[in-house]
Amino acid sequence: MTPDFLPFLHELADAAGRAILPHFRAELAVENKAEAGFDPVTIADRAAEAAMREMISRRFPDHGVIGEEYGPERTDAEFVWVLDPVDGTRAFISGLPLWGVLIGLKRAGEPMLGMVAQPYIGERFYGTGSEAWFERGSLRKPLRVRSCPGLSAATLSATSPTMFTAAERAQFGRLEREARLVRYGYDCYAYAMVAAGFVDCVVESGLGPYDIEPIVPIILGAGGRVTDWAGVPKRGGGQVLATGDARVHAAALARLAAAPV
Amino acid sequence: MTPDFLPFLHELADAAGRAILPHFRAELAVENKAEAGFDPVTIADRAAEAAMREMISRRFPDHGVIGEEYGPERTDAEFVWVLDPVDGTRAFISGLPLWGVLIGLKRAGEPMLGMVAQPYIGERFYGTGSEAWFERGSLRKPLRVRSCPGLSAATLSATSPTMFTAAERAQFGRLEREARLVRYGYDCYAYAMVAAGFVDCVVESGLGPYDIEPIVPIILGAGGRVTDWAGVPKRGGGQVLATGDARVHAAALARLAAAPV
Repeated sequence: MTPDFLPFLHELADAAGRAILPHFRAELAVENKAEAGFDPVTIADRAAEAAMREMISRRFPDHGVIGEEYGPERTDAEFVWVLDPVDGTRAFISGLPLWGVLIGLKRAGEPMLGMVAQPYIGERFYGTGSEAWFERGSLRKPLRVRSCPGLSAATLSATSPTMFTAAERAQFGRLEREARLVRYGYDCYAYAMVAAGFVDCVVESGLGPYDIEPIVPIILGAGGRVTDWAGVPKRGGGQVLATGDARVHAAALARLAAAPV
Repeated sequence: MTPDFLPFLHELADAAGRAILPHFRAELAVENKAEAGFDPVTIADRAAEAAMREMISRRFPDHGVIGEEYGPERTDAEFVWVLDPVDGTRAFISGLPLWGVLIGLKRAGEPMLGMVAQPYIGERFYGTGSEAWFERGSLRKPLRVRSCPGLSAATLSATSPTMFTAAERAQFGRLEREARLVRYGYDCYAYAMVAAGFVDCVVESGLGPYDIEPIVPIILGAGGRVTDWAGVPKRGGGQVLATGDARVHAAALARLAAAPV
């Protein structure tokens, strides 16, 4: 039997939020200018990851951890936590509240639990691979991808038009031209919106494992798909194609899998 | 003496929030699918503008109103309200909480008071041309643009790389290549971040008067500048250049004013 890690996932997100929030829009205050050489987001990132690692090693000393800031530990353990304390650092330093705390748990290499938390807004999107939920304050709702017949009806998102190689840019360009609406700039929040049924397709590249593995159980739990650009279920980083409706996934895959122009 | 319209500005924002929020991410619920032919954002937009117009005509029957949804009324009045109930409709329909309620008041054609309200997050950014504030819950702070020596140190934002004409795109491209960081996709929220000191420069085009006039007193009140691409203080819609530091304004103006390539 799999133990229920969900309460602990929320405890980790609580701790990360407490570590990060004093540094978000910190220039409105002045106190953190002192820590020489580091910007507010780096300070926040490190403080949050250290807090979460400390909690994991105390509660589950035999679990592994992969984190963006402090690297991998015991990655051959049965259970491995995957942490990206501030996904969307550029949004963070621009004052925009669409960065997120990403927390995932893998078992034997398979993403089994994941969360996107936005502490400033007070939102959590989380999933188990078979179910997914949204929480804000006392509100709790199941997450469900929406129906979308194809690319020409789809809202497409990518963090930045400049995140791709030249060949990838050409591949992405095919989707971009076909989609009904294209939005840039949302990092992990775009994936949360796929799970919530407001965005149909996210296409990205060059991600780290901590950028996407925590997201996989949310999208799957909401009924969507997360693969690489060749259609292989997502493990590790690199290229990502996340969709709600399977028809959008098939159409996007066909455009992306074609030889680069 | 100018009467203090600020409490009424907050009352308008309260009413707009009440009208809009039931429709934001409304597909998570089902009840508003019935109003045939209109999407949630159009319903929200109209309901909020109607509510604000009703309040204005009751309290200040001789004031004029310019609104995105219901057009101009008494625009030759001394005081004219400028309303954009949901600025950022594409963000809204994508579930992203960076749309805003824009409420402005002009006197004899001069923007004198303005607000960007984000009801879902619970934030308000507002200004009088000489002062500006941020409010969220019990928190209230003055808004102040940040210092930035020039474009190469600047965070630049535009709602979309596709909002420009071909000639404008070439002009904007000069700024885009020089800026330290470029972010797309934030509509009115990018202007709020200029006032808050986290974004240095917003360059846009093709705006309506209701998209920008409510923002002018916030940016000016925070110590920034809002002009067209020729440097003329902003009245009405069209091209916009909003900056925090005057050095960024001068540099951006030089790049934009040069002949299109």
